[in-house]
Amino acid sequence: MGRVLFDISMSLDGFITGPDVSLENPMGVGGERLHDWLYGLESWREHHQLEGGTTGQDSDIIEEAFSQTGAIIIGRNMFDDAERPWGDTPPFHMPVFVVTHEAREPLVKGDTTFFFVTDGIESALQRAKIAAGDKDISIGGGADIFQQYLSAGLVDEFQIHVVPLLLGDGTRLFGPRVHEIDLEITRVVSSPAVTRLRYRPLRS
Amino acid sequence: MGRVLFDISMSLDGFITGPDVSLENPMGVGGERLHDWLYGLESWREHHQLEGGTTGQDSDIIEEAFSQTGAIIIGRNMFDDAERPWGDTPPFHMPVFVVTHEAREPLVKGDTTFFFVTDGIESALQRAKIAAGDKDISIGGGADIFQQYLSAGLVDEFQIHVVPLLLGDGTRLFGPRVHEIDLEITRVVSSPAVTRLRYRPLRS
Repeated sequence: MGRVLFDISMSLDGFITGPDVSLENPMGVGGERLHDWLYGLESWREHHQLEGGTTGQDSDIIEEAFSQTGAIIIGRNMFDDAERPWGDTPPFHMPVFVVTHEAREPLVKGDTTFFFVTDGIESALQRAKIAAGDKDISIGGGADIFQQYLSAGLVDEFQIHVVPLLLGDGTRLFGPRVHEIDLEITRVVSSPAVTRLRYRPLRS
Repeated sequence: MGRVLFDISMSLDGFITGPDVSLENPMGVGGERLHDWLYGLESWREHHQLEGGTTGQDSDIIEEAFSQTGAIIIGRNMFDDAERPWGDTPPFHMPVFVVTHEAREPLVKGDTTFFFVTDGIESALQRAKIAAGDKDISIGGGADIFQQYLSAGLVDEFQIHVVPLLLGDGTRLFGPRVHEIDLEITRVVSSPAVTRLRYRPLRS
């Protein structure tokens, strides 16, 4: 294993948040609807210390991602926006590497340890690979970090949950850092709530 | 029937042409690759007076669209850009209504007649519905015309052929005219070359 992946919900018009993202509204106006399909799934709820939820293919796909991931990389903006809502028990339960310009001691919260990496995305990836061992590394966001890893040719495979919704405005998953990249379709899974498209970037 | 549909190829990052569209390069830089999956299909080639091609599910889906459509609506920019490349036998073989600000007599080319409609998208739709009879009306493009009909709540269903390609720049299918719209997934058909997603806009 040791693959580099990302996995994210996107509206059909390409947004991963709605407009006007703020600390109070980290998904932007209307953006929380991108995750409606997720909140009811047993596998997601279990990782967030919640009971109940539905089982089945949608839940299995999330469990698959959780169980195969050994480390997560996120950007500084995402960490700053989400640190408070995550509270004392962030939903990662594994090492998280934060790409930042500001050095800081590791931060332990529950069974998640955040490591702050100041020497770039490749260094963060090397450290995450060591931490993950045989498991995969997941790029957790936000959009700018996805684009940096994708543009650098460092992503092995990614899955997009295309939500049947047009948002009209917000944060684009594929923004200005992305240039022409050929993809191979590796899996398509469809449910009434969402279409899951998995791709492998082809090296040019 | 008499439904209002559209059907278009889009890169995963939301573009229906590449950048730098011109009369010489109407699909923009790299944009012709959005239609690679189409050019080899028997049903598409037949409508363009070409022989040969492959049969199967991809070809059937195109034949389905051709055979159920009775009239087409396009924008003035698309007409201007494509009139010359279409030549004396445009690939429509049915009435085409051009939404424009400039009055003009109908133009007959082969078995296609172009009608120029100067009093707006709803008038163009009424005239197209009369011409189509029991068949469907297809919104042929460009992006601005798709967005106008979609935002006005006049589209019954649309199909997007999501091409496994990031273009990075070009003409966005869902641009500034589009606001929040809920969709229902009505069909997902997957092939190695392209993923076909069909949606019904939900009236709010």
